[in-house]
Amino acid sequence: MSGTLYGIGLGPGDPELMTLKAHRLISNARVIAYPAPDSGDSFARSIAANALPEGVREIPIVVPMRVDRFPAQEIYDKAAEDIAAVLETGEDVVTLCEGDPFFFGSFMYLFERLSDRFPIEVVPGVTSLTACAAQLRRPLTARNDVLTVIPGPLPDLDIRAKIEEAQAVAIMKVGRHLPRLKALLDGMGLLDKAGYVERASLPEQKVHRLVDLEVDAAPYFSMILIYKGDEAWTLPPSYSS
Amino acid sequence: MSGTLYGIGLGPGDPELMTLKAHRLISNARVIAYPAPDSGDSFARSIAANALPEGVREIPIVVPMRVDRFPAQEIYDKAAEDIAAVLETGEDVVTLCEGDPFFFGSFMYLFERLSDRFPIEVVPGVTSLTACAAQLRRPLTARNDVLTVIPGPLPDLDIRAKIEEAQAVAIMKVGRHLPRLKALLDGMGLLDKAGYVERASLPEQKVHRLVDLEVDAAPYFSMILIYKGDEAWTLPPSYSS
Repeated sequence: MSGTLYGIGLGPGDPELMTLKAHRLISNARVIAYPAPDSGDSFARSIAANALPEGVREIPIVVPMRVDRFPAQEIYDKAAEDIAAVLETGEDVVTLCEGDPFFFGSFMYLFERLSDRFPIEVVPGVTSLTACAAQLRRPLTARNDVLTVIPGPLPDLDIRAKIEEAQAVAIMKVGRHLPRLKALLDGMGLLDKAGYVERASLPEQKVHRLVDLEVDAAPYFSMILIYKGDEAWTLPPSYSS
Repeated sequence: MSGTLYGIGLGPGDPELMTLKAHRLISNARVIAYPAPDSGDSFARSIAANALPEGVREIPIVVPMRVDRFPAQEIYDKAAEDIAAVLETGEDVVTLCEGDPFFFGSFMYLFERLSDRFPIEVVPGVTSLTACAAQLRRPLTARNDVLTVIPGPLPDLDIRAKIEEAQAVAIMKVGRHLPRLKALLDGMGLLDKAGYVERASLPEQKVHRLVDLEVDAAPYFSMILIYKGDEAWTLPPSYSS
């Protein structure tokens, strides 16, 4: 009997936005795996830190932090083999995932390598999408709105075309694309309908109207939400953070 | 000092997919509000039932279950006044919301009536979107995919145009639109890339390839996910449920 590979969504960052199920599985884990940068702490591990049991075995998956590049496949080949070796002994492996494992998550790289060989359970988590909407104090989607979620690294032309067709829009992974995206939205006359959130739900969270944002660099975990549908509406001038 | 209105995302249905924060706030609530049908149990209340404290005061917001119609505004005018009367005494009101309060949720009807008068906190929850992807065992979005979320009640022409432009697609609120949507996707040659999930994460959950689904009626809480991006891929023939 082999072990089960769990992909556990941890939510956007506040450990209290973890689900009860995630908390139970992590609290009982004997082996965990998680993505980690080549220097500094693992964000995923930091969300789960207070729930980790004594003596848990840890398999960090070290992925160099290069924005906009998808990690070298060899890193996941190696991680999948390390995890497979544990699963083969009958032990479960709990993989810690920021947000939701199947929403722009790196868990897919393990899933595609191991799902033919081992039982896998994915535990969904709160995504940054709705965490950011909560902080912007504006419903993400209402009634019969169409929502379009666009990765910020895509070319301007693609992003512009998607936004033109959309009603509610989320641009993920803003990061170093912030100045370009801000200029694009300014050209489209949408700056006053756009909100910006970085590190949603963490103590260092920032929430702004995009038009008020004066920095030119954003962390990878940042998002722009645009409310096109409501013609008369603009984002209010102030937020609590 | 007035009380705070909480909008609490409960997740897709499994009480264990509630967040720790939702659980804490509900466990300590003195007054709760929730949407309820005109006959039968409230789905939102049922998710939270085991966390409710003894003697909690309940404000059911009775909304007649008519698919595709948005509830009469008078119902929310009245509910907002009932809730305001509690908040004015300094007591908090915890509103129970299926999924996430700001993702196609009826909490927005309270929010728009009360956010100018009272402090409001929205606690995001796991959406059916990622809960369904977890059950279909397929990443919802990967790398730089664009995701489009489409309400099923929209007209065929609109849905077709949105799907043509999209990569990953979710169609929400399938309900009685199932036969129409299935015919539409068949005509677009997409049936073998579409998965169907109803009542995700509940014991009565159903998960199927859309092409295998032989019923013509779906509950309101049902979803179709379409993976257009990967040309070579089709949904596997069997699921565990």
